[in-house]
Amino acid sequence: MTTKEKAALGKRAAEASLGLGSAVKDAAIEAFAGGLRSGAAQVFEANEADLAEAERGGLSAPLLKRLRFDAPKLEDSVAGLAALRALPDPVGRILSARKLDEGLELRQVSCPIGLIAMIFESRPDALVQMSALAAKSGNAVILKGGREAARTNRALAGIIYPAGLAAGLPEHWLTLLESREEVAELLGLDEYVDLIVPRGSKEFVASIKARSRIPVMGHADGICHVYVHEDAEAAMAARLAVDSKAQNPATCNAAEVLLVHSGFARRPVPEAGGEPGIRFLADSLEAAGVRLELCPRSAELLGREASMGEGDWAVEYLDLRMAVKLVDSLDEAIAHVNRFGSKHTDCIVASSARAARRFMDEVDSAGVYWNASTRFADGYRYGLGAEVGISTGKLHARGPVGLGGLCTYKWKLEGSGQIVADYASGARHFKHEELSHGEREEE
Amino acid sequence: MTTKEKAALGKRAAEASLGLGSAVKDAAIEAFAGGLRSGAAQVFEANEADLAEAERGGLSAPLLKRLRFDAPKLEDSVAGLAALRALPDPVGRILSARKLDEGLELRQVSCPIGLIAMIFESRPDALVQMSALAAKSGNAVILKGGREAARTNRALAGIIYPAGLAAGLPEHWLTLLESREEVAELLGLDEYVDLIVPRGSKEFVASIKARSRIPVMGHADGICHVYVHEDAEAAMAARLAVDSKAQNPATCNAAEVLLVHSGFARRPVPEAGGEPGIRFLADSLEAAGVRLELCPRSAELLGREASMGEGDWAVEYLDLRMAVKLVDSLDEAIAHVNRFGSKHTDCIVASSARAARRFMDEVDSAGVYWNASTRFADGYRYGLGAEVGISTGKLHARGPVGLGGLCTYKWKLEGSGQIVADYASGARHFKHEELSHGEREEE
Repeated sequence: MTTKEKAALGKRAAEASLGLGSAVKDAAIEAFAGGLRSGAAQVFEANEADLAEAERGGLSAPLLKRLRFDAPKLEDSVAGLAALRALPDPVGRILSARKLDEGLELRQVSCPIGLIAMIFESRPDALVQMSALAAKSGNAVILKGGREAARTNRALAGIIYPAGLAAGLPEHWLTLLESREEVAELLGLDEYVDLIVPRGSKEFVASIKARSRIPVMGHADGICHVYVHEDAEAAMAARLAVDSKAQNPATCNAAEVLLVHSGFARRPVPEAGGEPGIRFLADSLEAAGVRLELCPRSAELLGREASMGEGDWAVEYLDLRMAVKLVDSLDEAIAHVNRFGSKHTDCIVASSARAARRFMDEVDSAGVYWNASTRFADGYRYGLGAEVGISTGKLHARGPVGLGGLCTYKWKLEGSGQIVADYASGARHFKHEELSHGEREEE
Repeated sequence: MTTKEKAALGKRAAEASLGLGSAVKDAAIEAFAGGLRSGAAQVFEANEADLAEAERGGLSAPLLKRLRFDAPKLEDSVAGLAALRALPDPVGRILSARKLDEGLELRQVSCPIGLIAMIFESRPDALVQMSALAAKSGNAVILKGGREAARTNRALAGIIYPAGLAAGLPEHWLTLLESREEVAELLGLDEYVDLIVPRGSKEFVASIKARSRIPVMGHADGICHVYVHEDAEAAMAARLAVDSKAQNPATCNAAEVLLVHSGFARRPVPEAGGEPGIRFLADSLEAAGVRLELCPRSAELLGREASMGEGDWAVEYLDLRMAVKLVDSLDEAIAHVNRFGSKHTDCIVASSARAARRFMDEVDSAGVYWNASTRFADGYRYGLGAEVGISTGKLHARGPVGLGGLCTYKWKLEGSGQIVADYASGARHFKHEELSHGEREEE
């Protein structure tokens, strides 16, 4: 079957999914878990074969670890399925409701997007999560996993797809692609595919974005900032800088750049024996193993060599390195973040609510934080339940994206024979009364 | 100045607009109205010159009418500004709120998108409306109007831009482009432009979509359906078919295709002397001046010639013509709409709530109606206030788009020094308590 034919069948499945009730979707997710447990041996066997080949091919230890799908990973996946099943159905939520006139009621109701392509790198447990997110949100899905995990992915999809069918999901609700050529072709099929969700390295996401005309939801860069305002509490500033950088430096929500107000930088910190703020911050970060890349002015204050010029501050280290820059005002900090940041997540450490509010309003990022670590930018920590990924695009969904980001809405109008001619002629007039909303439609 | 430089300045203006309060934005809209009144003579003079040239160039009477900007049009524009000013500020709405832990509160807050390019055809009053929509939603805007209206647009922008500046909008909040070459260049500037909103013919919108990598919000086709179910009330079906087609056939929400259940088509209509349903519908439409294009089965029932084959039903007449097709089931009707429709607005006429619900759930369109004319698909009729346009895309905004569609959201997290390490270690646990929301942030 060609990729185009597969996509056309996927689109038909998406249409057939539009009317699925919560019970069918939750039964499907339960069936995935049952299928995984009873088919575990096949999955482990396929995974052993993938691992053996990857080892022969010299895959690095961290990548081998990500590739492994063993009993603990299976239990994690099953627990994730149970948590997802427990979340409220994202479809059928009444987002707004208005009585246009007597017997003419308009409701804006959440509904599935349609056919979503999810493309991810080596972790096979992502296949379980992606399939379940698609099922719960009523979307059909085309999945493409990493080549190293081909056997594991085939075994997983071989369990999950029929389990979903048996529970009542439509034929072709899940399609597994296996080759890069198929993905390349898929990126051009905007007639069938409504959305692409790539998960992987920034180079991977950027290459998908560059090649597709279909909307892509993801993030390419994570250039997050911590800005220490003039009136910041020093101990809090150091704690937040260290956590934002060092708690897990390889993640997209780890901070890469520390902006320090020159007033804070010079002010003595009593609890640190009166040493200046910039030294206190530098000591704290270095004690956590962070190597600093200094701008000329911060270097001068610390009596060291500068390694950052006035040039490009769009740096994403993804390891224990952090760039440090002195700024002379809140305005300069905001302008720097908007110019060099990646619109992901940025934090101000400040005592002044007024300064914090300006930073939060005027920094143009998906997450704007006051006195909290940038590492909180995550769907689980936000309380969204399962996370699709993080979006640095501005349209549709922004920041950590939960099930809601896999839904759109439609306008449902229920009348009793009303015609526009009567309103155009003035025979009838719109009432436009707001109705209560927020609840779900009855099934 | 190059288009790229203009876009870069527009982007800077968008950043400077992020912190604007409601008072400044509403004062700007009031200043536009005052400026239009006091500068009316210049605008009329410019418009006379545009009209004279268009007349010499042989522009058709309907287009000349759209091009005219005279005292009544000015009063309409001023009234539109007053209505827009009275709407609530779409920015700063708290869409969701959650206490992650004591002293750690997360709010999802609506905010402007950034720099929006609005490209429209000949109507110069669109410039007033677009500028005001941008100002109210806190976005910077790049406008390009029709060539025929160049002098009028220049005069209008020459009033509105400085009026906005004087009220407190940032420099370059509005940029007027004048040439097609500039628009072509603009479509590639995804680094600066967040969204393109085209308004005009479907060919116009399709050509913008085909040439741009920037997200485009608009609709290309309006292929709307009225489906008359087996149990429809005949008088209501005829009334809705006539209004959906004939109330204003040149609009995108006018219906193009009438699907008739074969049971309804054959059933005698008592109030029409027992003539069959299909004849009753045909008579009603023809009495309203509609020419019918019949499928073979409906033609046979009516004893006429068929003009529609089994082929392409994706027809958009935009005049007093309507295609008619017999179907044998609700499923067939839904499948037909999903296959040939344009995901705009589709209506079922039915007595059965069950059939209506299935149609509304399973038809994959921005608007799904039960017993109401498709012509209701309009921002004003929906009670959205001013309308940006109608979107047939599925992401971000769908159907009639009001000020809300010119906004996105950001996540604002306010803490008191919390770090992720404490939650990762188990020293602290998330509470994830929902907080009340729906209101606006304090300014």
